[in-house]
Amino acid sequence: NNGRVDLSHGAGGRAMGQLIEGIFHKAFDNEWLRAGNDQSAFTVAAGRMVMTTDGYVVSPLFFPGGNIGTLAVHGTINDIAMAGAVPLYLSASFIIEEGFPLADLERIAESMGAASREAGVPIITGDTKVVERGKADGVFISTAGVGMVPAGLDLRSDAARPGDAVIVSGSIGDHGVTVMSKRENLEFDTDIVSDSAALHGLVATMVEASGQHIRLMRDPTRGGIAATLNEIAHQSKLGFHIDEEAIPLKPEVAAACEFLGLDPLNVANEGKLVVVVAPEGVEAVLAAMRAHPLGEEAALIGHAVADDHCFVQMATSFGGGRIVDWLSGEQLPRIC
Amino acid sequence: NNGRVDLSHGAGGRAMGQLIEGIFHKAFDNEWLRAGNDQSAFTVAAGRMVMTTDGYVVSPLFFPGGNIGTLAVHGTINDIAMAGAVPLYLSASFIIEEGFPLADLERIAESMGAASREAGVPIITGDTKVVERGKADGVFISTAGVGMVPAGLDLRSDAARPGDAVIVSGSIGDHGVTVMSKRENLEFDTDIVSDSAALHGLVATMVEASGQHIRLMRDPTRGGIAATLNEIAHQSKLGFHIDEEAIPLKPEVAAACEFLGLDPLNVANEGKLVVVVAPEGVEAVLAAMRAHPLGEEAALIGHAVADDHCFVQMATSFGGGRIVDWLSGEQLPRIC
Ligand SMILES: Nc1ncnc2c1ncn2[C@@H]1O[C@H](COP(=O)(O)OP(=O)(O)OP(=O)(O)O)[C@@H](O)[C@H]1O
Ligand SMILES: Nc1ncnc2c1ncn2[C@@H]1O[C@H](COP(=O)(O)OP(=O)(O)OP(=O)(O)O)[C@@H](O)[C@H]1O
Ligand SMILES: [Mg+2]
Ligand SMILES: [Mg+2]
Ligand SMILES: [Mg+2]
Ligand SMILES: [Mg+2]
Ligand SMILES: [Mg+2]
Ligand SMILES: [Mg+2]
Repeated sequence: NNGRVDLSHGAGGRAMGQLIEGIFHKAFDNEWLRAGNDQSAFTVAAGRMVMTTDGYVVSPLFFPGGNIGTLAVHGTINDIAMAGAVPLYLSASFIIEEGFPLADLERIAESMGAASREAGVPIITGDTKVVERGKADGVFISTAGVGMVPAGLDLRSDAARPGDAVIVSGSIGDHGVTVMSKRENLEFDTDIVSDSAALHGLVATMVEASGQHIRLMRDPTRGGIAATLNEIAHQSKLGFHIDEEAIPLKPEVAAACEFLGLDPLNVANEGKLVVVVAPEGVEAVLAAMRAHPLGEEAALIGHAVADDHCFVQMATSFGGGRIVDWLSGEQLPRIC
Repeated sequence: NNGRVDLSHGAGGRAMGQLIEGIFHKAFDNEWLRAGNDQSAFTVAAGRMVMTTDGYVVSPLFFPGGNIGTLAVHGTINDIAMAGAVPLYLSASFIIEEGFPLADLERIAESMGAASREAGVPIITGDTKVVERGKADGVFISTAGVGMVPAGLDLRSDAARPGDAVIVSGSIGDHGVTVMSKRENLEFDTDIVSDSAALHGLVATMVEASGQHIRLMRDPTRGGIAATLNEIAHQSKLGFHIDEEAIPLKPEVAAACEFLGLDPLNVANEGKLVVVVAPEGVEAVLAAMRAHPLGEEAALIGHAVADDHCFVQMATSFGGGRIVDWLSGEQLPRIC
């Protein structure tokens, strides 16, 4: 097969078994996959669990700071973590284009295995499909995940209240700009790198520090923090006032955004979170975040306000103000 | 947008929100999706859970007896059920090609919602990505699912023992032949229809009747019962003797297989199961199966035997014998 995936790798026969064994099981290596059942089993204590899924279609597949596989592991862990939950297990479904280099597939699988081991969240079940050349774009990955919510914690999208603080865990736009730059083959002076990371460790310290004051969390992925804040505003039926100067933004990302004609507020992040905190919890949550490597640059960027229009308003660096809308017509596809 | 999906539907902005709301949430309609979080929460009792995932790339998307969406719901429910587990919740990740008709997407989503309601297994979380025209093939769907294993039950792929009976729940090859016929634009005299169905109800009656004697179950999807029996043989380190005459096969499916040059043993099923049962349980399991609409034609097709070569041997209708291997070189792609 010339070192490439062919259709027999998805047909349920011997070739598929060898591909799964030789690449995926080897890379993800754990007792659940070795058991070789149609599903994997694990023991849970009574309580509240969460489940989430995301598909990944990022183009290009490899970019500074990660690849489609690490993104798939981190992204699903993060959507679990945004409930304050402890991520437990992942599944991974691969849709592969005929002709895709086995070496690239192996590289992706190996880095997924490494990311999952680093996070302590094993990939316990998977699936492999192959489609004809020209019917996909290299490889697409869908991951799902489950986690356990600590007793007493119940974060909800409608829980924000006027007066609550909005904190972002670090600089915005790094991931989206990295992928766009790589895609457009741009060379910037400095090296911008994706922020792709698993946030459950950071979240655990925040919950430990002041779980009862955390209203809700979101990872500002597609649509950036603009979309995230607008979503929360509508779900909690209030507005936000944010301060442009308070939002962490790397100068090189700002420059790249300007060059690419992007608003950093709309650009995807893959290792950042937005947390809405009751006033009493702000100090403790900020301190806990700043003490964690992934929250060192955490910043209070604004507050929730009563607003029937659910507007997100921003005081700009130039002393003016503007409404921050979510992306409507413009397109920033295949960023994740 | 001319009634078609465009790239903005996957970009995280307002268009995506409207697509999710207007098509998916409407079709799947449940309290979890309405909560609008990055993940969905549910309460579990202490015990053993299972998780599984499958991607669906079937071509054509619509076929007699179902479509890619109903297949995705049934298939993931079935992989949970094969552990003897009660399926609880599903996730669904959609990868959509730019230009895909919204009406087709809605039709798929509506029938997934119906299938999930009929099975009593809600789709509680999802994801939507859009790729450029020519970078996918209409729509791909990956579902994951979780379920709870009844206390005391522990089915494992290495649990078969020489002397165990092999039972199949009904006629083989219906799904694969239906999809192939539709794809090749063949018109047969009779209407062959996919067997796509959710098997957890059938499984529940089997477990109730004689759970302690069930060694393991598998749904013979890609690769057909040939692949399934070979897999079990290798995992349980034994062989099988099966009897061709005992295997339920519709005459029209047999005819279509002959025309298409397929061995029905290699053809995918999407609403059938293979169960290995200890001798003491055969009568009770068979009776329970035959009393269920999806097991009316259940048949004892053979036995496990001690065999270091792990061969699956079949007594043919002509009085001869042959080794049933799994598909190796041949290709039957995009059947599910
Ligand atoms: N990409 C992958 N990564 C990890 N494990 C995988 C992957 N693909 C398949 N597996 C594992 O290999 C085994 C066989 O998978 P397979 O998809 O054949 O089972 P199935 O879902 O029952 O069949 P089908 O997909 O035809 O319905 C399962 O244990 C599955 O978890
Ligand atoms: N196809 C779908 N079917 C059902 N629900 C969906 C679908 N797509 C998205 N959703 C739901 O819509 C909400 C928003 O999904 P979205 O994918 O934007 O969240 P996210 O995963 O946090 O973001 P991202 O995918 O950019 O990482 C979630 O509640 C999700 O479960
Ligand atoms: Mg996500
Ligand atoms: Mg599978
Ligand atoms: Mg999210
Ligand atoms: Mg399956
Ligand atoms: Mg998502
Ligand atoms: Mg299966």
